[in-house]
Amino acid sequence: MVDFIGIKDIQRIVGHIGPALFIEGLAAEIEADYRRWSEFDKSARHAIHSPVGVIELMPTSDGQMYSFKYVNGHPKNTAKGLLTVTAFGVLADVETGYPLLLSELTVTTALRTAAMSALAARHMARPDSRVMALIGNGAQSEFQAIAFHHMLGIGEFRLYDVDEAATAKLAHNLEALGHRNLQVKRCRSAEDAVRGAHIVTTVTADKRNAVILTPGMIQPGMHLNAVGGDCPGKTELHVDILRRSDARVVVEYEPQSRIEGEIQQLPADFAVTEFAQVLAGHATGRASPDEVTIFDSVGFALEDYAALRYVYKLQRQQGQQRGIDLIPELDNPKDLYALLAKKVEAPSTAAAPRRVASPVVA
Amino acid sequence: MVDFIGIKDIQRIVGHIGPALFIEGLAAEIEADYRRWSEFDKSARHAIHSPVGVIELMPTSDGQMYSFKYVNGHPKNTAKGLLTVTAFGVLADVETGYPLLLSELTVTTALRTAAMSALAARHMARPDSRVMALIGNGAQSEFQAIAFHHMLGIGEFRLYDVDEAATAKLAHNLEALGHRNLQVKRCRSAEDAVRGAHIVTTVTADKRNAVILTPGMIQPGMHLNAVGGDCPGKTELHVDILRRSDARVVVEYEPQSRIEGEIQQLPADFAVTEFAQVLAGHATGRASPDEVTIFDSVGFALEDYAALRYVYKLQRQQGQQRGIDLIPELDNPKDLYALLAKKVEAPSTAAAPRRVASPVVA
Repeated sequence: MVDFIGIKDIQRIVGHIGPALFIEGLAAEIEADYRRWSEFDKSARHAIHSPVGVIELMPTSDGQMYSFKYVNGHPKNTAKGLLTVTAFGVLADVETGYPLLLSELTVTTALRTAAMSALAARHMARPDSRVMALIGNGAQSEFQAIAFHHMLGIGEFRLYDVDEAATAKLAHNLEALGHRNLQVKRCRSAEDAVRGAHIVTTVTADKRNAVILTPGMIQPGMHLNAVGGDCPGKTELHVDILRRSDARVVVEYEPQSRIEGEIQQLPADFAVTEFAQVLAGHATGRASPDEVTIFDSVGFALEDYAALRYVYKLQRQQGQQRGIDLIPELDNPKDLYALLAKKVEAPSTAAAPRRVASPVVA
Repeated sequence: MVDFIGIKDIQRIVGHIGPALFIEGLAAEIEADYRRWSEFDKSARHAIHSPVGVIELMPTSDGQMYSFKYVNGHPKNTAKGLLTVTAFGVLADVETGYPLLLSELTVTTALRTAAMSALAARHMARPDSRVMALIGNGAQSEFQAIAFHHMLGIGEFRLYDVDEAATAKLAHNLEALGHRNLQVKRCRSAEDAVRGAHIVTTVTADKRNAVILTPGMIQPGMHLNAVGGDCPGKTELHVDILRRSDARVVVEYEPQSRIEGEIQQLPADFAVTEFAQVLAGHATGRASPDEVTIFDSVGFALEDYAALRYVYKLQRQQGQQRGIDLIPELDNPKDLYALLAKKVEAPSTAAAPRRVASPVVA
């Protein structure tokens, strides 16, 4: 049996410690993995585009474990009552090639993206940042707010979305947290939201070269967390923001970000810094209080590797594993045909409890 | 819920019509998809190698449906009681990016590889072929024998494997079929097996540049079905066989086969023919009775696309679908966070029956 984490399981796993602690723990795992950057097999993700969206595969391995994520991006899905982004992934054992875990990653990706944003901001934003503009108030937005509130002490969120109902939903969800030191302000425009913010997070979904932020909106010292531009032809920042003489652009994995990030708008020799180099101390995330720092985030496979190991570990710690019969278990591995020669049992509708112990992920 | 085909399901689905008819039906689906070759998004598969094996992802799409397969190759696994090759895959809807089906593909890959081998042989082997050498008698071998017996009328199989127990297992399984017009001969060497054969199928597992077939073993008119060489550094034929002046080499997808096939031993300008060109009538699979035809097979994503649609269709025709909660179902798709705010129900150990009808694949 292959371990399975479905929607009900991830609700329970996250519910057990709460989203804030989950995100903080995951950020620590992601950081630890970025600190051993050279151990990972890295490649730009595989994408197949259609007029309405993209489907991507994101594989990586550190030589011990292998992981991949399947993820789609379909901005018009919400009009049909469907999610813009869904995802799932697999963790496998490099030694045998056997999958160990199949997990939902829709909820987990929202949590890991927020964890990664906050982790980068810890190394790039001014430590005295207290106000964040949050532009794009869809499925990802609550997770960003919780991460920045919990991990960076952001006390005021300035919300804006072209869809007022989305902003109302986000405001409601944040107010329901009942944190006295968490203020929420609904703004009339992106410009209004950005005014006075120390950190600006853009997490919009349109698959086009949008201009969510224009040069006149940017003040010295700001940190821009550009999450929504993550696909060829899908950007959020006016190119002149990237070109500012006081701007510092940090990316996850340069070859992928050249294709998918905000920097797709710029020539291939435009200088950027990989986040792993910042963690390793080979580069700085911010050189002065007045720099404009830009985390040009697209999401990298290493973050999903860390997330899969993290949920696998939490599931094991909390118990209640369930499995699916995805891989045959044979008496003689050279006799695969025996499966078809056997009398077939009545089809089960049950995902059975795990029978065999798997190696525990530390 | 996402439809799920586990091991028990595939046993039932194949058992319902039997492996021979399953393979024949699947070969027809693969042929139909190869006939619309230009509609598919094609790329060489993504592979991560380790000293003991490889893990690969094989995505493709025809613009309507998207599929990918995860597959490993670990020759030393059998010593641990594990399969050399395991696989699973997903079929998704390009319009929404949502996965429709998660299916086991270990059993299905064995069936589709045999279907593809027999399909190619129909267009390449001499029509009067009656004797096949089968070298490598592991997990894939029964499926090859059934496919060639049923689809090409092969009446005599000459078996050889370095592992005598594997040959005994294969002979036992084939004899148990009880077909009067199916003869099985155990041979003492590859040379012995090949002597007098019209078709030679090599399906060995070692990850090295092996020389299963040498030039002296090859007679004019033979068809070579080279299945086992499917990875950089993993080949089965002596390079001089490919270089014969009367040899014709057919591959699935040339850019992938240049990396993984027998032709990796040859310069990039060595002439090969893509199978789709044979089907389209732009090239021939065999120009004369005396040619040595070589199907340099590595397995291409289109074949798994066809296989996933095929098992999805059979599952729906036969009923008894089951589903897994891999993707959230939300009242408001912009409110993903609601999943974590909700009171979590007790974890289910059941893979529930499908609640929602999905589009039927024709």
